[in-house]
Amino acid sequence: MRILIKDGTVVTAADAYRADLLVDGETIVAIGRGAAEATADRVIDAGGKYVLPGGIDVHTHLDMPFGGSNSSDDFETGTRAAAFGGTTSVIDFAIQYKGETLQKAFENWLARAEGKAVGDYGLHLVMTDLNDAIIDEMASMVRQGVTSFKLFMAYPGVFMADDAMIYRALVRAGSLGGLVCMHAENGWVIDVLVREALAKRQTEPRHHALTRPPITEGEATQRSLTLAEAAGAPIYIVHLSASQALDAVCAARDRGLPAYAETCPQYLFLSAENYEEPDFNGAKYVMSPPLRPKEHQAALWRGLATGDLQAVSTDHCPFNFKGQKELGRGDFSKIPNGAPGIETRLYLMYDGGVGEKRISLNRFVELTATAPAKLFGLFPRKGTVAVGSDADLVVWDPSAKHVLSAATHHMNVDYNPYEGRQVTGAPTHVLSRGEVIVEGDKFLGRRGRGQFLRRGSFGG
Amino acid sequence: MRILIKDGTVVTAADAYRADLLVDGETIVAIGRGAAEATADRVIDAGGKYVLPGGIDVHTHLDMPFGGSNSSDDFETGTRAAAFGGTTSVIDFAIQYKGETLQKAFENWLARAEGKAVGDYGLHLVMTDLNDAIIDEMASMVRQGVTSFKLFMAYPGVFMADDAMIYRALVRAGSLGGLVCMHAENGWVIDVLVREALAKRQTEPRHHALTRPPITEGEATQRSLTLAEAAGAPIYIVHLSASQALDAVCAARDRGLPAYAETCPQYLFLSAENYEEPDFNGAKYVMSPPLRPKEHQAALWRGLATGDLQAVSTDHCPFNFKGQKELGRGDFSKIPNGAPGIETRLYLMYDGGVGEKRISLNRFVELTATAPAKLFGLFPRKGTVAVGSDADLVVWDPSAKHVLSAATHHMNVDYNPYEGRQVTGAPTHVLSRGEVIVEGDKFLGRRGRGQFLRRGSFGG
Amino acid sequence: MRILIKDGTVVTAADAYRADLLVDGETIVAIGRGAAEATADRVIDAGGKYVLPGGIDVHTHLDMPFGGSNSSDDFETGTRAAAFGGTTSVIDFAIQYKGETLQKAFENWLARAEGKAVGDYGLHLVMTDLNDAIIDEMASMVRQGVTSFKLFMAYPGVFMADDAMIYRALVRAGSLGGLVCMHAENGWVIDVLVREALAKRQTEPRHHALTRPPITEGEATQRSLTLAEAAGAPIYIVHLSASQALDAVCAARDRGLPAYAETCPQYLFLSAENYEEPDFNGAKYVMSPPLRPKEHQAALWRGLATGDLQAVSTDHCPFNFKGQKELGRGDFSKIPNGAPGIETRLYLMYDGGVGEKRISLNRFVELTATAPAKLFGLFPRKGTVAVGSDADLVVWDPSAKHVLSAATHHMNVDYNPYEGRQVTGAPTHVLSRGEVIVEGDKFLGRRGRGQFLRRGSFGG
Amino acid sequence: MRILIKDGTVVTAADAYRADLLVDGETIVAIGRGAAEATADRVIDAGGKYVLPGGIDVHTHLDMPFGGSNSSDDFETGTRAAAFGGTTSVIDFAIQYKGETLQKAFENWLARAEGKAVGDYGLHLVMTDLNDAIIDEMASMVRQGVTSFKLFMAYPGVFMADDAMIYRALVRAGSLGGLVCMHAENGWVIDVLVREALAKRQTEPRHHALTRPPITEGEATQRSLTLAEAAGAPIYIVHLSASQALDAVCAARDRGLPAYAETCPQYLFLSAENYEEPDFNGAKYVMSPPLRPKEHQAALWRGLATGDLQAVSTDHCPFNFKGQKELGRGDFSKIPNGAPGIETRLYLMYDGGVGEKRISLNRFVELTATAPAKLFGLFPRKGTVAVGSDADLVVWDPSAKHVLSAATHHMNVDYNPYEGRQVTGAPTHVLSRGEVIVEGDKFLGRRGRGQFLRRGSFGG
Repeated sequence: MRILIKDGTVVTAADAYRADLLVDGETIVAIGRGAAEATADRVIDAGGKYVLPGGIDVHTHLDMPFGGSNSSDDFETGTRAAAFGGTTSVIDFAIQYKGETLQKAFENWLARAEGKAVGDYGLHLVMTDLNDAIIDEMASMVRQGVTSFKLFMAYPGVFMADDAMIYRALVRAGSLGGLVCMHAENGWVIDVLVREALAKRQTEPRHHALTRPPITEGEATQRSLTLAEAAGAPIYIVHLSASQALDAVCAARDRGLPAYAETCPQYLFLSAENYEEPDFNGAKYVMSPPLRPKEHQAALWRGLATGDLQAVSTDHCPFNFKGQKELGRGDFSKIPNGAPGIETRLYLMYDGGVGEKRISLNRFVELTATAPAKLFGLFPRKGTVAVGSDADLVVWDPSAKHVLSAATHHMNVDYNPYEGRQVTGAPTHVLSRGEVIVEGDKFLGRRGRGQFLRRGSFGG
Repeated sequence: MRILIKDGTVVTAADAYRADLLVDGETIVAIGRGAAEATADRVIDAGGKYVLPGGIDVHTHLDMPFGGSNSSDDFETGTRAAAFGGTTSVIDFAIQYKGETLQKAFENWLARAEGKAVGDYGLHLVMTDLNDAIIDEMASMVRQGVTSFKLFMAYPGVFMADDAMIYRALVRAGSLGGLVCMHAENGWVIDVLVREALAKRQTEPRHHALTRPPITEGEATQRSLTLAEAAGAPIYIVHLSASQALDAVCAARDRGLPAYAETCPQYLFLSAENYEEPDFNGAKYVMSPPLRPKEHQAALWRGLATGDLQAVSTDHCPFNFKGQKELGRGDFSKIPNGAPGIETRLYLMYDGGVGEKRISLNRFVELTATAPAKLFGLFPRKGTVAVGSDADLVVWDPSAKHVLSAATHHMNVDYNPYEGRQVTGAPTHVLSRGEVIVEGDKFLGRRGRGQFLRRGSFGG
Repeated sequence: MRILIKDGTVVTAADAYRADLLVDGETIVAIGRGAAEATADRVIDAGGKYVLPGGIDVHTHLDMPFGGSNSSDDFETGTRAAAFGGTTSVIDFAIQYKGETLQKAFENWLARAEGKAVGDYGLHLVMTDLNDAIIDEMASMVRQGVTSFKLFMAYPGVFMADDAMIYRALVRAGSLGGLVCMHAENGWVIDVLVREALAKRQTEPRHHALTRPPITEGEATQRSLTLAEAAGAPIYIVHLSASQALDAVCAARDRGLPAYAETCPQYLFLSAENYEEPDFNGAKYVMSPPLRPKEHQAALWRGLATGDLQAVSTDHCPFNFKGQKELGRGDFSKIPNGAPGIETRLYLMYDGGVGEKRISLNRFVELTATAPAKLFGLFPRKGTVAVGSDADLVVWDPSAKHVLSAATHHMNVDYNPYEGRQVTGAPTHVLSRGEVIVEGDKFLGRRGRGQFLRRGSFGG
Repeated sequence: MRILIKDGTVVTAADAYRADLLVDGETIVAIGRGAAEATADRVIDAGGKYVLPGGIDVHTHLDMPFGGSNSSDDFETGTRAAAFGGTTSVIDFAIQYKGETLQKAFENWLARAEGKAVGDYGLHLVMTDLNDAIIDEMASMVRQGVTSFKLFMAYPGVFMADDAMIYRALVRAGSLGGLVCMHAENGWVIDVLVREALAKRQTEPRHHALTRPPITEGEATQRSLTLAEAAGAPIYIVHLSASQALDAVCAARDRGLPAYAETCPQYLFLSAENYEEPDFNGAKYVMSPPLRPKEHQAALWRGLATGDLQAVSTDHCPFNFKGQKELGRGDFSKIPNGAPGIETRLYLMYDGGVGEKRISLNRFVELTATAPAKLFGLFPRKGTVAVGSDADLVVWDPSAKHVLSAATHHMNVDYNPYEGRQVTGAPTHVLSRGEVIVEGDKFLGRRGRGQFLRRGSFGG
């Protein structure tokens, strides 16, 4: 099967130029001008449109167990929704529960994905029970293509790692060519604040944010960067939301340390004001870190523009308002943490980033595809438009209008945090390894076609 | 009893002027010129000499239990040695052991001091077992004049407090007008490094320093300052030794936060090179934090000069080389941590500070007496030369030569870290509450005359 | 003549204690308790009051020629008003005009002061025409007690020194033990902005501020600090008003450089909003640097509290609204620059500083008297309350109410920038060299009693 | 003419992938795999080699008048030597002399280049005589494709602009979409130091460096960044050499300002030690800014790696040692300033940058071609390997060995600053607009084929 994408503007992290693009099988085989249409099985007219690398979302939680139920998107619905939004690869988090081997966790999550995923998927490994044997086992994970490891500085007694564990994991991951992903919030302090708030009967969703103040994220971020420096290892801060945390990353990078961080659209487009929505609607925005006061947004945009933030992921972790979020009525600490976003990332970043001239078109591609691919060992197979790369491609109409809404989105969740927001810019065709899986509002892919991505070493 | 100190130069944190000084009973009653000697019972000629406030050492460990024995100076020998060095008040650390109330710890340490101390003494309370009842009990300590509380970020499983404890203690102390004193080293990381070193048979004293690198102090200092900021409370970093830690304090102060720190003479005059002394002599310098590479000294002196460091204390915690330090032959982690210094502080700071023009004469007084008194609720009773203040006074001969040596010092320990060092400047008379307790090399005081200092609120 | 000030609380930069204070002739001779009143010629009851060192204002422009007339206070009216406000010493600026020797300028200003001044006065020398001979002549000035030299980075073609002049003056002053005082605004940029504003017919007083934006002060301050660092010399930034300038000073001090700065009450209590007062009243606040937006005030208060700013002076340079300020109707650049303040400094700093708990009582004394004395070679003769010091003293009633107003002030100017402001805290008695020159609202001094202050070396 | 470059690894700022590349006429028309060789007129085998965009050197001084003679390379020899080193475009500096229009300067330099240049060339305009008419004329320059303007903060009386000129030029350039290039050294201070050195008979080449200390570059860089911030305009610092200057750029960028800077290979590979070479050989390295102490090199490499420095240019300005450099025997200030480098840039940056793993291969391309093209309005015509771009291409053999030497280089100058240095990595073919102009050691181009580059707006 040969597909010719004609007359588009090919956009990479560095370039933007008019060209035809020829896909043969799963791969991009040629980029040129005036290509003969005759040799192609199918021609897609991309005149006036961009041809982008498929988006890569390195932070998703599909089918994640939580308090008896699971996050509401599984690998099928989640990766399908991703595809509708122009994202063709995800990296999800396999969770090691207490007492389990990493292999067990890995296989558990493979089983959740296999036969379901529509696009390709990789896995990070969340380590919650670190000991000598597990430290040792990290090498086996790297060999099997799981080259990044997540630790939590929050949730004491559940997920939280102490600094000794963090330090050891950093040293080990660094020596294996792996990368530690850090959830950086000071769980100890947050726990005190949560307990105090509940004792004072401060139970509304907004207290979720008030009990996780920006300084707790700033502290943990600073600490994790210092531990990484001590360990001589790279580190990647996930879902950075607070300007204090960004300041810490910025200072580390200025000293030449291999420190990296992502933010998420929710921290760029929503704010703590959303917690004030009536009728418990604030619960829709309960996630950790929480949404921040508006002034943090400008700092994050500056970080994206200047390079202090390297990636935009979603932390997609949807729970239905009905039946799931509602569990926290009367006690914000019982609200399942997380919100949907896997489908809306490119819409928002293009409209609010490129459209509002906060970032360039090249930077948009770099943040949503190229840099994630490089950081997480997928490049150059994924993350760019280049000869020899997988034909994960998005034909993007920069002038199309689209309205974000639960009524039309493809995520399996009963609300959309951006309900009613109109954006400009939308995909018209989405290809995954040479196959058109989305065309306009039609899904042409199929359940289970997605493949596990055996990732290479950290390439920061 | 009225004592006239004639013709000296009275030095305070702000002033230096020729005057006669009249002591009546325990108190300074007049400062003037041309005082009639007839009204005095005794006249001390201070011509060509300085009249300084008695030194205050806010960090001592006298009679401290450690692994079956105790630090080698008790309250008698320790405060006597202090007096010989011009220090007339100390604040020691009462330790709450697991399961004890604060009251128990307080009384335990009072019992060690009462009937023995030669000079006056206050107590901080080391909290190692913090829970709701103990948080509550802090108020009682403040009422009894114990207005500062020490926490450890090192020694996991023994003394270490987690961040929740630290945060709660900071909030509570702040609301009570108390001050938290912090031992800031990241104990988790240090423990990993120590275990790794021992596993590699790196057992010599120098590995004590190598397993507690400056970055572990920098991290903990930064974290404790952030926790204090979150708590809205003042904080005092004890025995700051590393430039990274000073940078953190400096940044906090620049933002106007009530952050304070002391350093100690050992960090100004000794360095990691001392660990290389042969025949296990490096063990003499095993303390925590450890001595640092020489380049840290300049940073500390800058901090003393510019005000980023507010006090110089000693962390006096002596162990004999024979029989105590030697316990760590073959395993540096078994060397008792600590070194003597209660007697040598003013000698060193005058000679190496004022004499070398690194700090002014006023600053010398401020660092060794006035600022400690203000920070720890002893001012204006102690810490200055003023009408109405206690007549804790030192007549200081700026041109006297003195050699620091175990052969002549008064501390009950078999070595001196500064052995053979000649200094210029020495006390000729030391008064405690109006009584001459040291004159030249004669001790005129008596065991048990020292009083417990019921301290007031933090006055930073 | 012996005066006994009984029962007051003596306040210095370091201390505060109840004592009686005995003045004999021009000098403080004794401080004590329970002094016999019989030996005194006069007793002043200071019960419930503070006894402060007389204020020192190191930045005044008395009898300063400007465009055909002079600033409206001469040395008589100016120093008398100062005394009413508790300020007993001033340092004014002798101006070297193009072609003049420094000696000529010095003598010119001595002649303006002699026979008129009520309190003591020193002189800085403003150098506007620097060449080899003048550089050489600086030594002669230092010998005559003029140990500080002012340069302008603003007013090109009139006062402005280029960087070569500045650098040479810094090197020279440093080697002579002198101090360079810098007016730090980038005159080049300001001139462009002023010309552009006038070309656009933006002629109102507020355009004075808009054409001297904070960044122009920040730039010049940063530059002057760097030139001082290159020269290895201390520097003193006058009338610092912008947070950007303070940031530069703070960074220099953090690195241990001998960098100093003053601010003035107008930058702490007034703001750019005052330029909006109707009927050309904004002209009353036209000074350089201009009043800043309100957010700069908090930064300045922080600088005063933490020590990054060392002194508070007034830049007293009064021009009557009628006949002088009015010259600039229709062209803000013709408004005489300057405002009155010599009398109101202590009122404002006590009420808004100590009263509002932004600075301590000791710091109030340090900022208004002790530090200025030390920086400018007047200490310990002036600037403190100590045996042997000049009896320049203020008995200060901390609970007295006072209203600042042109109707009652003693400055020779027809408006008061703080008109109607009620303050708490006021002097009841003001002594200059042992003579009560102000008592309540009565002036008891006499014209011409003030003496020239031959100042010593820079003592920062 | 169609050229097929087969089997190479195409490298851009973002990508690196195996592909064939087809050039048709002056342009790249296709990139793909398995291209049919039949359609090409010529096939170049690039197996095992990189295909890079032609280098762009945005800082050269060809045929520049200096004290009676000219820099020793003209546009013919200079651009030929550039081509041998893989650089296919240069941007030289047209100089406006006092009294001239910008048009005059522009035409003067066009005349120097036309009919001579071998590769393509653009021009910056050095403005030395700025007034209202010249400010106005800047728009005409931009229309003619001269979109960048250089100013000097050094050389008072010759080239130096005062801050008013700088500010006005920044405002104007910014509003025209142009870019100001700044030579940032404080000329005032340097002049004082030079005069003092000569007065002390310090005449050797090393005094060139000692009289231009790093702090003078740090100051001017900081100032120019602040002026650009005040003007709301972008700025580009040329030949940044000192860590202090980099710190200033880094801080500006962290705040999101459009601040850019280049460094040059000489500051990365040579140091102040070179001034100590005997027999006046130090004169070979006399340039401004001067070579710095070695410790600055690490800071610059860090800046290149982290993005704080955006480009590497050469400041190529060759003078023969015999007859030109020798003019300064006995007076370093008479040594013509400048050194050769147009040919050696890529060799050094590949060997010392990529080879030593200080920068990635992509970053090497970005620094030497892509970023310069984007900053100076040549992108995407130049600076990348993309369909539709000019076929300015370098086939680069990463394993070829080459020795830098005056005996073999193509620059018209009698010495090479890197004499004898062996490097790994060298061009085998160099194409300019589709024409092979260098193949191995043969020059196949021809004098005068280079074209003037009408540049677009600043695209930072």
